[in-house]
Amino acid sequence: MPRKICVVITARPSYSRIRTALEAIRAHPDLELQLVIAASALLDRYGNAINVIESEGFKVDRKVYMIVEGENLVTSAKSTGFGLAELSTVFDDLRPDAVITIADRFETIATAIAAAYMNIPLVHIQGGEVTGSIDEKVRHAVTKLADVHLVSSDHAATRVISMGERPESVFVTGCPSIDLAREAREAEPRDIDALLKQYGGVGADVDVSNGYIVVMQHPVTTEFGLAQKHVLETLTAVREGQFPTLWFWPNVDAGSDQTSKSIRAFREHHAMRNVHFYKNMKPLDFLSLLINSRGIVGNSSVAIRECAYLGVPAVNIGSRQSGRDRGRNVIDVDYDHAAIREAITTNFERTDRHSDLLYGDGTAGEQIADVLAKAELTIEKRLTY
Amino acid sequence: MPRKICVVITARPSYSRIRTALEAIRAHPDLELQLVIAASALLDRYGNAINVIESEGFKVDRKVYMIVEGENLVTSAKSTGFGLAELSTVFDDLRPDAVITIADRFETIATAIAAAYMNIPLVHIQGGEVTGSIDEKVRHAVTKLADVHLVSSDHAATRVISMGERPESVFVTGCPSIDLAREAREAEPRDIDALLKQYGGVGADVDVSNGYIVVMQHPVTTEFGLAQKHVLETLTAVREGQFPTLWFWPNVDAGSDQTSKSIRAFREHHAMRNVHFYKNMKPLDFLSLLINSRGIVGNSSVAIRECAYLGVPAVNIGSRQSGRDRGRNVIDVDYDHAAIREAITTNFERTDRHSDLLYGDGTAGEQIADVLAKAELTIEKRLTY
Amino acid sequence: MPRKICVVITARPSYSRIRTALEAIRAHPDLELQLVIAASALLDRYGNAINVIESEGFKVDRKVYMIVEGENLVTSAKSTGFGLAELSTVFDDLRPDAVITIADRFETIATAIAAAYMNIPLVHIQGGEVTGSIDEKVRHAVTKLADVHLVSSDHAATRVISMGERPESVFVTGCPSIDLAREAREAEPRDIDALLKQYGGVGADVDVSNGYIVVMQHPVTTEFGLAQKHVLETLTAVREGQFPTLWFWPNVDAGSDQTSKSIRAFREHHAMRNVHFYKNMKPLDFLSLLINSRGIVGNSSVAIRECAYLGVPAVNIGSRQSGRDRGRNVIDVDYDHAAIREAITTNFERTDRHSDLLYGDGTAGEQIADVLAKAELTIEKRLTY
Amino acid sequence: MPRKICVVITARPSYSRIRTALEAIRAHPDLELQLVIAASALLDRYGNAINVIESEGFKVDRKVYMIVEGENLVTSAKSTGFGLAELSTVFDDLRPDAVITIADRFETIATAIAAAYMNIPLVHIQGGEVTGSIDEKVRHAVTKLADVHLVSSDHAATRVISMGERPESVFVTGCPSIDLAREAREAEPRDIDALLKQYGGVGADVDVSNGYIVVMQHPVTTEFGLAQKHVLETLTAVREGQFPTLWFWPNVDAGSDQTSKSIRAFREHHAMRNVHFYKNMKPLDFLSLLINSRGIVGNSSVAIRECAYLGVPAVNIGSRQSGRDRGRNVIDVDYDHAAIREAITTNFERTDRHSDLLYGDGTAGEQIADVLAKAELTIEKRLTY
Repeated sequence: MPRKICVVITARPSYSRIRTALEAIRAHPDLELQLVIAASALLDRYGNAINVIESEGFKVDRKVYMIVEGENLVTSAKSTGFGLAELSTVFDDLRPDAVITIADRFETIATAIAAAYMNIPLVHIQGGEVTGSIDEKVRHAVTKLADVHLVSSDHAATRVISMGERPESVFVTGCPSIDLAREAREAEPRDIDALLKQYGGVGADVDVSNGYIVVMQHPVTTEFGLAQKHVLETLTAVREGQFPTLWFWPNVDAGSDQTSKSIRAFREHHAMRNVHFYKNMKPLDFLSLLINSRGIVGNSSVAIRECAYLGVPAVNIGSRQSGRDRGRNVIDVDYDHAAIREAITTNFERTDRHSDLLYGDGTAGEQIADVLAKAELTIEKRLTY
Repeated sequence: MPRKICVVITARPSYSRIRTALEAIRAHPDLELQLVIAASALLDRYGNAINVIESEGFKVDRKVYMIVEGENLVTSAKSTGFGLAELSTVFDDLRPDAVITIADRFETIATAIAAAYMNIPLVHIQGGEVTGSIDEKVRHAVTKLADVHLVSSDHAATRVISMGERPESVFVTGCPSIDLAREAREAEPRDIDALLKQYGGVGADVDVSNGYIVVMQHPVTTEFGLAQKHVLETLTAVREGQFPTLWFWPNVDAGSDQTSKSIRAFREHHAMRNVHFYKNMKPLDFLSLLINSRGIVGNSSVAIRECAYLGVPAVNIGSRQSGRDRGRNVIDVDYDHAAIREAITTNFERTDRHSDLLYGDGTAGEQIADVLAKAELTIEKRLTY
Repeated sequence: MPRKICVVITARPSYSRIRTALEAIRAHPDLELQLVIAASALLDRYGNAINVIESEGFKVDRKVYMIVEGENLVTSAKSTGFGLAELSTVFDDLRPDAVITIADRFETIATAIAAAYMNIPLVHIQGGEVTGSIDEKVRHAVTKLADVHLVSSDHAATRVISMGERPESVFVTGCPSIDLAREAREAEPRDIDALLKQYGGVGADVDVSNGYIVVMQHPVTTEFGLAQKHVLETLTAVREGQFPTLWFWPNVDAGSDQTSKSIRAFREHHAMRNVHFYKNMKPLDFLSLLINSRGIVGNSSVAIRECAYLGVPAVNIGSRQSGRDRGRNVIDVDYDHAAIREAITTNFERTDRHSDLLYGDGTAGEQIADVLAKAELTIEKRLTY
Repeated sequence: MPRKICVVITARPSYSRIRTALEAIRAHPDLELQLVIAASALLDRYGNAINVIESEGFKVDRKVYMIVEGENLVTSAKSTGFGLAELSTVFDDLRPDAVITIADRFETIATAIAAAYMNIPLVHIQGGEVTGSIDEKVRHAVTKLADVHLVSSDHAATRVISMGERPESVFVTGCPSIDLAREAREAEPRDIDALLKQYGGVGADVDVSNGYIVVMQHPVTTEFGLAQKHVLETLTAVREGQFPTLWFWPNVDAGSDQTSKSIRAFREHHAMRNVHFYKNMKPLDFLSLLINSRGIVGNSSVAIRECAYLGVPAVNIGSRQSGRDRGRNVIDVDYDHAAIREAITTNFERTDRHSDLLYGDGTAGEQIADVLAKAELTIEKRLTY
């Protein structure tokens, strides 16, 4: 009997990070894929990831509405609690042989606890990294709840083992998001104008024929209350620089409402003739957009990870990605519109693009499926010291 | 302004473990105590800890009913989820400067997550220990969510630091349960007959004048389904040995219903002329009972910790306490009625009692209050490697 | 395509009340049965109805753990809330064409709201009755949420219509519990001794050869806090009268813990040589037991309904059944041990047994399936005045 | 001791409906006000009612985040469930002598159940009305859970009594929203331009000097899926008619996301030079706006109730208000842009304004406080037939 592998996806970006692994699991003769879509991945205003997922041919086994509205710290905790309560019913129903949880978003600990408490082996993807903010706590707490660790880099593996996990339970597979980056790079060249038209979005008609930049900026949860100020710096930089800009709305998170609101307010008060706003894109479309862009601005992990592999220049703002290994593509700046603008101008002039394999070589999906088919699945563990 | 310290107590044994710290916090001029009673600490059939707590003069600020009935793995997860959702409201209301979570019971991760997600500094008591079962995962996950670590032993401190916590955030205070043990030892001798009469209980009238044993056996969560079998071995050993026995019902936990049911079934089918059953006792009464007993049998941590300090002989059964440092008082045996009976006979004959200070010297409560008043309270942390 | 009919069963007695309807739905060519087992119907200490249900050949589609422990008024509300949250997921998953909710237990309003809010036609069984207590509020609130009403008696139909429901949506089918009573009466005579042996239970060996009585007493939710006192009167009456007695534990409810505790305490302090205690029985076994008994004592609706049809003498205590139509079999008494004892003695001497068809003629199950197959299923309704 | 009256407000419009009663309760020597703000009344994107409430001098005792995001039928049920679970804790904490629930929004049944199950007398404001949609079921179910009924009109009183409620428990106080309308009418004339500037909003600069119309359109829950189509008709009518328009966003509800999205999409594709959009306004400001307008369009109850008293012309679209008594100010039309446009033109030309006292005379707040101070507060009730 194939092993039943239950993957819980809670957000649009998590889907991109796992998609090639989903395909590899589905294709593997010794594995059976169970797919649970939860949290903001079900919500329209965060890009309706479930539509993308279904349109790409995946069958969704269960949906878990769990986000309590408010987008503050209280509702982050509440959402996680209700998600935990529901996911336990889901796992009781689906009876998987292993559960996969992805990375470190606040709500992912619900998946981890439900699996751990129900004695289902827990597989964690993307442990062992170092960033800032609450993600840091979530990520390592999930590591301590997990039984198998599929990490992106050697550095991450070392950290997971240092935390007391058994070396035999740690596998460096690279990050599946890099697989997509490889796919995007190896694909036929795209007509960017046509691609953008598919998505609609709101804002100015931006002429991308002479290059454009991509912006993606999320609130930082431990700096709650500052989201508004932070995004204003970026908005100002982009407006003053008059860069042709494609801007993506933030993930659901404590603070994202502030960010969205600031953007909306800014739009009402300033003519933004150089910016078009998008909610979501299919992963490959988004990667093609990056490949063809002059660079990415903000604090998304895409700038650090996929863009390292792709060699796309990045201006990384603030503390959200601090601690992550960087490729040659990144310039770090503070929340300061002048500095942001300056960094865009400088870094995005570069014409040389170097591929850095820090987060994988583009075969993570298959490696993950292989580990899932063969690894010992046990729920017993102890500190190694 | 004094720092507001919010302590969440979720079970009867956790109260014993923290009581002297509660008193020291309440008495400290720079601290203000906020007390939340939750989970099985509110429930009659697990000893109604809240009554004990109030009768000992503590004011309860909030009550959180969170245990979903079923006592299986699904309901453990659900209970934790609902507890998390409620505790976030409680913290939003009480606005503490720090939250204290105790040890490693399954539901305690709800306290930890609620505090961490709400950017409230989290203090963890009794991290860094090694046992078996799901507690192991919970304990270390809570360590990764916590900002300040108050541990029982040097060994525990080393482990917490090895997991990547900053050494400055780790304090060896000893375990407050040892403070109580010291209090009990230093108190006037007690009339055990009179003490027992206060508590009623059910079962045979046991003559304790020639010595007696105490039994306390909990289900082991990762061995779910075996609880029934495990407790039968102990029941058989106790019945065959005809030891005058005071038996305490187990905590609420996946499996505890099985344990309770087995005990009830056994009672219906066998005359247990040597056993009286109790639900709960005030901590000091219980410790006096231990001091005056010939020894303790089962898998309670009391046998390993308090009894190490007190030098009370213990027969520890099965895997629940494996990995914990042991004093000279402990003999370990498997789930086997003959072995249990034999170990009771052998170990409880001993008349020499050695105090081992493995888990503290009896001043933990005051040390904890001191740390809480002075330690830096921050929510920012990263792996130290 | 057959209509998918989703039945939610939340307690042992509800199962008895609906069983013949379940069979008729399952057998009907135009209907498909979906079965959800929830609340105390999943719990061991309330008779583990799910085991009975599965052993009688029904396939359970979903299980919903929802009872928050505490058995007080707060946890009744909480349990209902969590049940509502989970049932909405269940209905979203199963997509029934109609949902059936049974009678008036506190948690059943969760079923009613989930269906109503999700625009699924709601069928209510046993509306329009009058009792006391919170059940009264629940029952009529569910009527106002329901689209189709399947009632037990003409009297009930009149009341439902008076409340503003359309007469075309009200059907007098009788109560399916009477179908079982008919089955039991028409079955082969049973060997009561053998029947009882199957169930174990606890307490004295009761000699039933010269007749016996059955006791079933539930707490009354609006008289919360008095449950203990109330059950003591009955215990005393039974003990003083020394009637050979088969006593059944109460349902989960605010107060049931008090009731159970009182019974346990009474047992510890008084030799109850004439009472054996049972948790649960298969419905037909229980009805055979009633048919062969000298009468039933307490405040169960069985005494009023099934026993009216069967003509089994009943002593009904207190306010719980007030307002319900009574057959010739019932004597009402107050919470008073002398009065209870006297009523038992008087009423149970009677040898004439009259069948009163107040609650149906024993064909309710089939009538219900017929209505479900043919009735208009709509969610739009308004007051008729 | 004054009676503690706990009022639960779950939405912006509910606050307007209750404000004068809040003031009267607070001012009454025999009453003490407890205020709980919950659901969409806490949320920024539904007008952040809590800010208005606090800015108007009320102290908020508890906040209950309960809206699960998704704005579909599943999440309406879930939100209600989680709200019920939390409100029970709140009532356990605040221990009110009576709880007030307002009208018939889906989440208000959570307040009603929590109070009823906890044996707290429940006071329902605005029962006995007839509309369409799920509100109809909610409203009457709450009536059956409530102990005291404070209704707006004689017609409503008759209906409540017909449903089996005791006449002594029904009081015709009028609707407190009419009190505000009276206040607004009796206030000094306002400078509408200055008033509007305070609120910002988004969209075109609308010249209101020659008259303007107000639009407020909510989704109809039983017509889920059509919200998008319905609002388009109104948008089209308003655009074609080029009426100077002040448009208010809808309440949180299944479908409101669709409505908001449609509006946003329409705005992106059509220049709306005659429409400005607002989120929320202080009740008196909003009423002044209505008094000075040429009329109101949509399906808000304000058009039916307050505007009857004020004599402000209204074009009421679709089924949402069907069944409500109408004053001379209303014209009803279907979802049809031509009909809507035509009705606006015709009805808003009228210069005669008649005050109809269908929903009260403007003293409801004081009458309500009086009843609360004097009425018998009991939780026992039965059908009167």
